[in-house]
Amino acid sequence: MSSKPTIGFVGLGAMGFGMATHLVKQGYAVKGFDVFPASVQRFQAAGGIPAASLRESAEGNDYFICMVASAPQVQEVLFNAETGIINVLPKNATFILCSTVPSAYAQSVEKELKAYGRDDIFFVDSPVSGGAGRAAAGTLSIMAGGSDAALGKGKFLLQEMSDPKKLYLVPGGIGAGSNMKMVHQVLAAIHILGASEAMGLAARLGLDARTAADAILKSDAWTWMHENRLQRMLEEDWNPGASALTIILKDVGIITSTARLQKFPTPLSSTAEQVYLTGLLHGWGPKDDSAMVRMYTSESLTKVQSTLSPEETTRRLQIVTKAMKYTNIVSAAEAVAFARHLNVDMTQFYDLVINAAGGSNMFNTLGATMIKGIPKGQAPAETLTIDTIIKELSDIVQEARDLYIPLNLATTALNQYVGAQRRGWGGEAATSVIRVWEDI
Amino acid sequence: MSSKPTIGFVGLGAMGFGMATHLVKQGYAVKGFDVFPASVQRFQAAGGIPAASLRESAEGNDYFICMVASAPQVQEVLFNAETGIINVLPKNATFILCSTVPSAYAQSVEKELKAYGRDDIFFVDSPVSGGAGRAAAGTLSIMAGGSDAALGKGKFLLQEMSDPKKLYLVPGGIGAGSNMKMVHQVLAAIHILGASEAMGLAARLGLDARTAADAILKSDAWTWMHENRLQRMLEEDWNPGASALTIILKDVGIITSTARLQKFPTPLSSTAEQVYLTGLLHGWGPKDDSAMVRMYTSESLTKVQSTLSPEETTRRLQIVTKAMKYTNIVSAAEAVAFARHLNVDMTQFYDLVINAAGGSNMFNTLGATMIKGIPKGQAPAETLTIDTIIKELSDIVQEARDLYIPLNLATTALNQYVGAQRRGWGGEAATSVIRVWEDI
Repeated sequence: MSSKPTIGFVGLGAMGFGMATHLVKQGYAVKGFDVFPASVQRFQAAGGIPAASLRESAEGNDYFICMVASAPQVQEVLFNAETGIINVLPKNATFILCSTVPSAYAQSVEKELKAYGRDDIFFVDSPVSGGAGRAAAGTLSIMAGGSDAALGKGKFLLQEMSDPKKLYLVPGGIGAGSNMKMVHQVLAAIHILGASEAMGLAARLGLDARTAADAILKSDAWTWMHENRLQRMLEEDWNPGASALTIILKDVGIITSTARLQKFPTPLSSTAEQVYLTGLLHGWGPKDDSAMVRMYTSESLTKVQSTLSPEETTRRLQIVTKAMKYTNIVSAAEAVAFARHLNVDMTQFYDLVINAAGGSNMFNTLGATMIKGIPKGQAPAETLTIDTIIKELSDIVQEARDLYIPLNLATTALNQYVGAQRRGWGGEAATSVIRVWEDI
Repeated sequence: MSSKPTIGFVGLGAMGFGMATHLVKQGYAVKGFDVFPASVQRFQAAGGIPAASLRESAEGNDYFICMVASAPQVQEVLFNAETGIINVLPKNATFILCSTVPSAYAQSVEKELKAYGRDDIFFVDSPVSGGAGRAAAGTLSIMAGGSDAALGKGKFLLQEMSDPKKLYLVPGGIGAGSNMKMVHQVLAAIHILGASEAMGLAARLGLDARTAADAILKSDAWTWMHENRLQRMLEEDWNPGASALTIILKDVGIITSTARLQKFPTPLSSTAEQVYLTGLLHGWGPKDDSAMVRMYTSESLTKVQSTLSPEETTRRLQIVTKAMKYTNIVSAAEAVAFARHLNVDMTQFYDLVINAAGGSNMFNTLGATMIKGIPKGQAPAETLTIDTIIKELSDIVQEARDLYIPLNLATTALNQYVGAQRRGWGGEAATSVIRVWEDI
């Protein structure tokens, strides 16, 4: 007889299936449920215990993991009068919410559990990051918030599912984990579209896609997302849906709706969201999010046969990498400013991002400067000033415009730099663009 | 023998054809050229004198009107070494440039004429507005700048082509006319997309298109563009190209490129431009600009069969009209701030807009308040505050988001209000949103 407890699990999608089967491999009995019977069957074939209903997956189990896709689904899982698990979870059960939800929603769950007289439940708010591969390998990044008691109860399971260095116990109680995930997703959401914007720009500038990608990945413009999405973008491998447009669209919606509640501006996230919504309208929702490159160029990237001279190739590669670099500085500023506004632990935030999907060369370097605080009114510590960026980025935006290439993110980023310049900060270092958010 | 001079004319497109044939009807001999021979033949059939070449249209004529589509085309008309008219225009000829070009370009023409030793030419920078119908009727709005001598020479022709109340002699020399047209087009460019955004939103909220249109046209949300584009949008009458997407895309490009040169932010114009560029990528370039409604809904507007209760219909109509109204306040602010930044004569600007295609209920009322100057630090003169707008517009943007409806303009407008609120102006009147541009 195993000493490991039986785990209830709902949500056997791309991520959840990996997480649940990993727990099976670690020797846990996992009773899994999904609204799609085929997913439950697949889970059974992988060694899991199939649950015939949601309630059956929860009954009698002291631990329950919820990995459904969205807050409305979580609400159904817990509180649906006929099928919800609120009344069948054992006394003092631990409920681990791994879905990505708004922090305000996680907090509402805490209140609703209490209203139902179920504050005996140890509730952990612990969204995850890392993709299906790391879910199956048990090496996710996990951002967990909750009472000390709840974290104490759930920690062993979070440890099973995460990389030892990437389990973040986030101070601040319920909502803190979701907030941490959200501010990480600011970078993820911008960089996912940024990968498409940069590669679309490169294609329409007549650059060979591999040459452009190599230049980006070796440059200041590198992002984790660019490296990760590149292969699927080049191969147009969009149907398996490793990470569907609808997923990042959901995440960016959490960002912008929370930002509205906070009366905090997130211009790059808003821009990305609008482009994603337009992509959705054009039928890209179920496709891999790297298909967003189609919002910038109508031809396959690999069809470009470059006829440019070496000198012109170099010049145009600079256009692409600079557009992306300068956008990524603003994306770092937007994420850092929003995180600080939400009183997120900044050291933990930085550590999380540089080891996860939100990382970029600009965040990893200039983001650190932004987090340490800006030396206001002092001589710029860096040679790259906002004035210089505006000069170069204006030329880039104009050249793209002359070629009828949309540059949604770079244009929004330029607007932020211009805003900083108009406030009198043009001579300051690039990182001072964060003053647009913070110096009010 | 007529006492009226022969007029050379190049550019017999939708607008130019109407202007040239109107002059013919007024008794002028007009020698017309176009790169499309069919246009020249059509002009001949309408009583014009066909020119076999560009130079032939100019030779020996003391007056020449240029109505080609863009600055690069103007450059060819004047200065092409083999075909340009610079060497064939008679001494002391009057050159009337009616094309919409950047003011910086108009100024470069003035310099280049001088460099060619042709500063004997009386040069008038006089873009027009009003559409093909008013061009043919000789009732255009015309914004003319130039030396007093040049305006004196060209005025009788401008009078022939314009409505008596809509000929604006704009102080400030060459470039002033183009600047006036440009700041007018800020409103035009935003409102053209705004018509699509509002009607797309209405359709996706399940509202009957005619009901929504009637509500908009009778409300604070009215714009001249909405009224003008509505019929073509409902009928999907997009091929005749009364005003093609490429035309407003050119105009908005003049706005954003000039704004970049001026280091002045035009966030709504930038947003509109990016959506237009995306529309271009999707093949809408040659279509009527009202086809941009397809960026918001994939179905015909008139296919919506509303099943909403009267109460819900009223509530949703409010969503549409308020989204549009609040966007139009920011569009008025962006136009007024940009015009003032460029030292445009504000009384003339206001008069021009309210009688032309850029008019809106919000510009016509609140725009006037913005132009008179904002009572900084005083109690708001209006009951509608920025805080109130943010509250309402946030809910609208969230509801649209929940239904996956892009709201490019309304989202950008909301960002401007939030920027004002963060600067401490949330309790001020709605018109104070202009402080985002002016209070730096």
